[in-house]
Amino acid sequence: MNVVDVDVPGGRYPIRIAPGRLDALDEAIPADATAIGLVTNPTVGALYAERAERALARAGRRVLRIELPDGEAHKDWQTLNQIFDALLANGFDRRSVLVALGGGVIGDMTGFAAAVFMRGIRFVQVPTTLLAQVDSSVGGKTGVNHPLGKNMIGAFHQPVAVEIDTDVLGTLPAREVSAGLAEVIKYGMIMDPAFWAWCEENAAALRALEPAAIAHAIQVSCESKARVVAQDEREGGLRAILNLGHTFGHAIESGLGYGAWLHGEAVGCGMVQAAELSAEVAGFPAADVARVRALVAAIGCPTVAPDLGAQHWMDLMRVDKKAEGGEIRFVLTPRIGEALTRKAPEDAVLRVLARTVGPV
Amino acid sequence: MNVVDVDVPGGRYPIRIAPGRLDALDEAIPADATAIGLVTNPTVGALYAERAERALARAGRRVLRIELPDGEAHKDWQTLNQIFDALLANGFDRRSVLVALGGGVIGDMTGFAAAVFMRGIRFVQVPTTLLAQVDSSVGGKTGVNHPLGKNMIGAFHQPVAVEIDTDVLGTLPAREVSAGLAEVIKYGMIMDPAFWAWCEENAAALRALEPAAIAHAIQVSCESKARVVAQDEREGGLRAILNLGHTFGHAIESGLGYGAWLHGEAVGCGMVQAAELSAEVAGFPAADVARVRALVAAIGCPTVAPDLGAQHWMDLMRVDKKAEGGEIRFVLTPRIGEALTRKAPEDAVLRVLARTVGPV
Repeated sequence: MNVVDVDVPGGRYPIRIAPGRLDALDEAIPADATAIGLVTNPTVGALYAERAERALARAGRRVLRIELPDGEAHKDWQTLNQIFDALLANGFDRRSVLVALGGGVIGDMTGFAAAVFMRGIRFVQVPTTLLAQVDSSVGGKTGVNHPLGKNMIGAFHQPVAVEIDTDVLGTLPAREVSAGLAEVIKYGMIMDPAFWAWCEENAAALRALEPAAIAHAIQVSCESKARVVAQDEREGGLRAILNLGHTFGHAIESGLGYGAWLHGEAVGCGMVQAAELSAEVAGFPAADVARVRALVAAIGCPTVAPDLGAQHWMDLMRVDKKAEGGEIRFVLTPRIGEALTRKAPEDAVLRVLARTVGPV
Repeated sequence: MNVVDVDVPGGRYPIRIAPGRLDALDEAIPADATAIGLVTNPTVGALYAERAERALARAGRRVLRIELPDGEAHKDWQTLNQIFDALLANGFDRRSVLVALGGGVIGDMTGFAAAVFMRGIRFVQVPTTLLAQVDSSVGGKTGVNHPLGKNMIGAFHQPVAVEIDTDVLGTLPAREVSAGLAEVIKYGMIMDPAFWAWCEENAAALRALEPAAIAHAIQVSCESKARVVAQDEREGGLRAILNLGHTFGHAIESGLGYGAWLHGEAVGCGMVQAAELSAEVAGFPAADVARVRALVAAIGCPTVAPDLGAQHWMDLMRVDKKAEGGEIRFVLTPRIGEALTRKAPEDAVLRVLARTVGPV
C-alpha cells in the first residue's frame, strides 16, 4: 500500500492508495463515530455502493446511503439540501461521519455538506475517478455552484482520510483516464523533472492502468500537491502554479461549451500551449516543447486546440480568475520542473494561438 | 472607548464599545478591501443604515446595501441566497467585506454568508441589540435554520472586528434590554462573583442604559465569554457553562411557542430555576437563591415560570441538546461565580418545578 500523510492546520490525514481499498473502508471511520452517511450517485452507486456498505458495516455503525443525481448540473444548493434532509430525518449528530464515494462533484458536495452540517462534521473521501484521486485528495476545497458562477459557495474542509482504490479505475472510460493523466504529468512539468521523465517512460503503462505504475503516479501527484498547498493553504501565490495549462484550458471548455471536452483534456492541450508560450517569453527550450506535445499525445489527450478565433480566445482568457485589470497572468515554465506566474504580451499570446489551433 | 481583544486561532480581533461607533465604521474596514456589502433588515435599516453607509463611504470603497426580511422565520437558505445573488450580480470578489448591521439573526446569516462566499471572505459585526452585543460578539458561531432544526447549517467564522455603538440601544424596546441583561448577569453567576455584586448595585443604571454602566457590562460579558471560548472553541465541555438557565429556558420558549417570551426572558427565569436546582443538589445557599430571584426581577425579567405541567416540562427538557440517553444535564452553581454541568435526579427537578411555576 502507498500512503501519503498530508499535514493540515490542526492535524494530519492519510491518503491510502492500493487495489481493494474499497473493502477496507471501515479502517477510515473514527472510533467515536455515531453513524455513517455514504454519499454517491446512481452510476458509481450501482457499481460500488454495496461493497462500500459491506465494508463500512464492519465499523459497527448504522450506514445510510444517500444517492444524489449525477453530474455538474446538479452541483447546487438544492442537491446539497438532499444530504441535510437525509441526515436530519435520520437523527445524525455532530459525531456522525460522511463518506464521499464518487468523482469530483460528489467529493465537493459531500465535503461542503460535512463542512456546514451542525457547523462541521468529519468526512472521508473515496474518489473513484483518476482526476479526483490526484486533484481533490489534497487541498480541502469543497463547494457547490451558484447560477452566477462555478464553486462560488464553499469552504475549506479537510477529510479525516482519503481511500483510493486503484481497481475502481477499471470501470472508468478511457477518455477519463487520459484526462486524469493530464493532471498527473502537470506535477512533473511544474516541479519534478525526474517524475516527468518517469511519466515519459511509463505513459503506456499509465494508460493501461498497470497497478504499480498508476499507484506510484497517484502517490507522487498527491505528495506534490500537498507540498504546494502546505506552503499556501489559502491561495495567496504559490498555489497558482497548480493552474498550469488552465488559462488556455478554461477558454477551451468555455468556448466549446462545458462538457464538449473533459476538463483534463482541455488542461492537457493547455499545457502544450503554455509550453509554447513559455518558449516565447520564458526561455523554455524548443526541444522541451516537443517533449510536452509528445507526452500529452502519449497519454491520450488532444494537442491541437480548437479554432475559436483569436479575439474570442483573448476575451475568454481575460475573464479567467487569474486575469487582473484586463491583463492575463499565465503559469509559465522556464524549464521542465520549474514554474512561475507572469503576465505575457498580447502579441506573444497571439503567435502561440496561431501555432496551436487547428481543426479538431 | 472600551476595547476587548479576542484571540482566535490564526489571529485576534477587537471589540470596540462606545457611543457613536456607528459613525466610525470605516475604521473596521481592512486596507485591502475591494467592496463592502452592508447587510441589514428593514427595521434596523430605516434607523441606522444611512449613517452606517456614510461612515463606510469614507473607507473609499463601493458600499452595497443588502436588506433581508426581518425575523427568525426568514433565517434560512432562501434568505441567505439573497446575499449571494447580490454579491455576484455586483461583482464582489474574495477581498470584499460584509458588514452585519442588526441583531442575532442578521449577524448569524451575514457571518455564514461570509464563511462560504468564495470559500470565505471577511466580515464585521455591528450588533444592534444588547443580546447580540454580549452574546454574538464572541464565539464565531454563524448559520441558518433548516426546516428540521434551528442552526443546523452553519460554520465557525470569526469577524475581523466588532463595533458596538451603545447609543443604538436607545431605540431598543425595554423588554429586549431586559432580555439582554439576563445574559449579562449570567456571566457573573457562572464565573465572576464581583461582577455579580456590581450588577446588583447597578441594575437600575443598566435598565436605564446609563452609558458608562452599559459599556462596562458589555465589556465584562465579552471578556468573560472570550475566556471560556478560548479554552473550548469547538464546544467540548467548558463552553457548556454558558448555557446556565438555558435548559429550563428552552423548555419555556418551546412550551409556550417560540416568540411568546424573548430568549433572554426565558433564560432569566431559567436562571432562577437553575439556582433552585443548585440549592437542591449542589449546595447553593438559600440566601443566594433569593439574590438571584431579586436580580432577575430587578433587570425586568420574569421570575415565575409558566405552568406547562410537570410531565410536559420534563419531556421538553429531555429533547434539549444537552440531554444524553434520556438523562438531563443541567448547568448548576455551587456558589455565585462558579458553575459545573451535572445530571440531576428527577425528583429534585420536580420539586424545583413545583416551587418555580405559577400563573404568568
